[in-house]
Amino acid sequence: MSARPVIVVAGIGNGSGTGAATARVFAKAGYRVALIARNADHLNKLASEVNQSGGEAAAFPVASYSYEAVSGVFTTIKQHKWASPEKAEIRVALWNAGAGVWKGFLDVTEQELQTVVDTNITAPFAFSRQVLLAFKENEIDQLGKRGTLLFTGATASWRGNVTTSAFAAGKFALRALSQSLNKEFGKQNIHVAHAIIDGGILTDLSLSRRSDPSASKAWKEDANIRLDPESIGKSYLYLANQDSSALTWELDLRPAHEKW
Amino acid sequence: MSARPVIVVAGIGNGSGTGAATARVFAKAGYRVALIARNADHLNKLASEVNQSGGEAAAFPVASYSYEAVSGVFTTIKQHKWASPEKAEIRVALWNAGAGVWKGFLDVTEQELQTVVDTNITAPFAFSRQVLLAFKENEIDQLGKRGTLLFTGATASWRGNVTTSAFAAGKFALRALSQSLNKEFGKQNIHVAHAIIDGGILTDLSLSRRSDPSASKAWKEDANIRLDPESIGKSYLYLANQDSSALTWELDLRPAHEKW
Amino acid sequence: MSARPVIVVAGIGNGSGTGAATARVFAKAGYRVALIARNADHLNKLASEVNQSGGEAAAFPVASYSYEAVSGVFTTIKQHKWASPEKAEIRVALWNAGAGVWKGFLDVTEQELQTVVDTNITAPFAFSRQVLLAFKENEIDQLGKRGTLLFTGATASWRGNVTTSAFAAGKFALRALSQSLNKEFGKQNIHVAHAIIDGGILTDLSLSRRSDPSASKAWKEDANIRLDPESIGKSYLYLANQDSSALTWELDLRPAHEKW
Amino acid sequence: MSARPVIVVAGIGNGSGTGAATARVFAKAGYRVALIARNADHLNKLASEVNQSGGEAAAFPVASYSYEAVSGVFTTIKQHKWASPEKAEIRVALWNAGAGVWKGFLDVTEQELQTVVDTNITAPFAFSRQVLLAFKENEIDQLGKRGTLLFTGATASWRGNVTTSAFAAGKFALRALSQSLNKEFGKQNIHVAHAIIDGGILTDLSLSRRSDPSASKAWKEDANIRLDPESIGKSYLYLANQDSSALTWELDLRPAHEKW
Repeated sequence: MSARPVIVVAGIGNGSGTGAATARVFAKAGYRVALIARNADHLNKLASEVNQSGGEAAAFPVASYSYEAVSGVFTTIKQHKWASPEKAEIRVALWNAGAGVWKGFLDVTEQELQTVVDTNITAPFAFSRQVLLAFKENEIDQLGKRGTLLFTGATASWRGNVTTSAFAAGKFALRALSQSLNKEFGKQNIHVAHAIIDGGILTDLSLSRRSDPSASKAWKEDANIRLDPESIGKSYLYLANQDSSALTWELDLRPAHEKW
Repeated sequence: MSARPVIVVAGIGNGSGTGAATARVFAKAGYRVALIARNADHLNKLASEVNQSGGEAAAFPVASYSYEAVSGVFTTIKQHKWASPEKAEIRVALWNAGAGVWKGFLDVTEQELQTVVDTNITAPFAFSRQVLLAFKENEIDQLGKRGTLLFTGATASWRGNVTTSAFAAGKFALRALSQSLNKEFGKQNIHVAHAIIDGGILTDLSLSRRSDPSASKAWKEDANIRLDPESIGKSYLYLANQDSSALTWELDLRPAHEKW
Repeated sequence: MSARPVIVVAGIGNGSGTGAATARVFAKAGYRVALIARNADHLNKLASEVNQSGGEAAAFPVASYSYEAVSGVFTTIKQHKWASPEKAEIRVALWNAGAGVWKGFLDVTEQELQTVVDTNITAPFAFSRQVLLAFKENEIDQLGKRGTLLFTGATASWRGNVTTSAFAAGKFALRALSQSLNKEFGKQNIHVAHAIIDGGILTDLSLSRRSDPSASKAWKEDANIRLDPESIGKSYLYLANQDSSALTWELDLRPAHEKW
Repeated sequence: MSARPVIVVAGIGNGSGTGAATARVFAKAGYRVALIARNADHLNKLASEVNQSGGEAAAFPVASYSYEAVSGVFTTIKQHKWASPEKAEIRVALWNAGAGVWKGFLDVTEQELQTVVDTNITAPFAFSRQVLLAFKENEIDQLGKRGTLLFTGATASWRGNVTTSAFAAGKFALRALSQSLNKEFGKQNIHVAHAIIDGGILTDLSLSRRSDPSASKAWKEDANIRLDPESIGKSYLYLANQDSSALTWELDLRPAHEKW
């Protein structure tokens, strides 16, 4: 029985952002999609949408981004019976969950700091562990790889700034994890990559923040001023499709008119 | 009359490396290829090869990588009559010429330093100027761009080391140019990107340096230990195909087993 | 009543490393020293030593590097009656506590990860909060500053590597915190700086790991191959003495013969 | 006959900036000062001033920052008869010459580019060569060093930006040189360091650009908004005084209120 690849995507917001777009892009490219998030409704809605578009997706809600919950959900993922008959192999995984905290340092609560730590350190460590253990079981494919583990970074992955003491701490840590794993697991033909999303992304949430009609219209229509989630998803597909002779650890992505 | 894109590639070595592979990849993707290099024989051989494979290439030799020579060759490129009837538009350009100097600082001659400056600063400044002037004439295409200007970097673009005082000076400078241009011309929908090639590339030259048969065989066959020029070329095509909502300034590329 | 500055140093190991040396250097420069660590014996021993050398030190043990414990100890520090009569002002603070974890990613336990998070994120966030609140009460001094907050970084602050997935995550996060705070509090004339200690430090612990007598002797005597804690302490004093026209966020320190 | 150290400072502007302040700081610390610059009047004026303040300085004008001129002036420096009888040893050297070019890329002339290359690459390579050859003759001093070679960097050493295509190319290159030399010559106990001056410096020139009286007054008096050249000079003295167990390659310096 031949195998068919699974991508595991953790963090899909309400289905309008990077995680969901990545799921759609990979589904279209033939991947099965295992979706992890905290909100079961959003998960189920996205899974249904992918399934109705001819893809194959399944929803795996977690109660929280604790080490245990994230580790545990992989047992369920591995036992999942996919509709199509081929053997399921986790070949790509994306850690896309995050918690943006932008505020002055003295206003950051202990709880907000904990959330940043959970979503950028504790949970991605648990996630990476399960993904890497799964990759190690894979044969090397025609690209020369056992799997590709992707992380979504942000401007704050590169630079701390006046309102990012907590957020940048989390994002720097996630970047460090990705770099360490790239170096440690490269020799096992496991590819680990990190994308710096250096600008605002067009999502329902970012759109809702533009209350002014003309600002809202520009945000929706002008690709020069914000990132399109689908374009990010395509970049993840490019990374997953790199062969073992030329693997990227990190790339940045921003709209053409972004000041940086 | 519709337009058909031209990629200008400067620096093709003997036709076995990154510049040549990029020419082939873009030719296959429908681009006409304008080739710039100092060695006319290598240029003509590569142009013939591309033309015989169904592509369209033309050779533009330069006497040296001086500011004048590099500026001047664009007049010739712009006047070139391509076989196919569509209007020619320079839409992509790659500065791939370089001069590797790896030696102790006190052994670097003034001439070697000059060569590093020529190939990493003077000539790419002249090249970028001509390319940007050409891009500014272009309409914005369906990707939201007027053109994509690419630079080939190296490990020494990131880090100076014990034998790279001259080479890293050149490569750092080239990286600075690419970053400055990315920021300055982004608002004109011109995309400037820089690739860090962080490992050895499989070329005739690098192969010839492995005199031991087993080392030579491994270098040729084991994609995990050296970069395949074609894979680099495909990464350049990915960059050229990015839409204006999600543009990469920099990505790194290295083989899976590279220690870094 | 005039004021006399206090330096708060968190993390002193067994009294042979960076934290302790910094305490001694600042004591000699006229600072009172408030020492925070988990091991009360080591704390008391160092405080006694400083006091007997003509300095003024006090020990403030914490049960753990939890947010609460670290926040709470500042109440005690602020209430401390120093022997000398001048008003006590916290003018310098150093976060030097850390937990080195060097191991393959799959061998890192959840507990080890938690320790890294505690010592590099949770506790330094609590520490920084208390220090900054104290600094904000200070008048601007003759250097143009209200206070200097220092962080000890490591090679892993810059680069993740094959055995540093956890450690680098912590150290990157600490660096992000320091950079964010530098930018946020600079306009309040508060100076935040970060030192990359990019090499082994001569301590009882690092010495004990060299069991071979000649290696041990070299480690002790050859300043070219390891950092002297006192030299690090002097660099911290230099940073504390910078005036507001020329403040350093980050500097690196390594022995002359270190390969990097 | 005992030896007395010489610092060679290249680049002193009109005597009101970093180079001149460094000369004064080191003269006060007991160094003889060899001054290199293109303007003989400014050189002689500064040398006289230092000599009248109890220091010992000599002026070494160069016709241009060409490789030959900069190499050649060291012959004169080495033959110089200092007033004091001790043997002269070049122990510190500062490359501080530069040429700021801030303009859109398409407006940068070939001549401006050449000036950037001369002052940031060609001349500092020649300068470094002479300095390193001199250092190699020195005995290791009580700090464990043969000498300290310093470079003045700028914001553009770190980041290219919209008006710095040429300037950043030069400054990135200079930084690469400093890092390469640090790594190559560390094992010979030669210390190479680079300072990122990340803000405006109070000089006659920068002052003259503030025509508004209140802006001019603020620039002169408010240490929070611009760097004091003397503070930079003191940082160079700190670097020169580091011992071989804890050497800095790079530090940044900026005023407290600088946005970065």
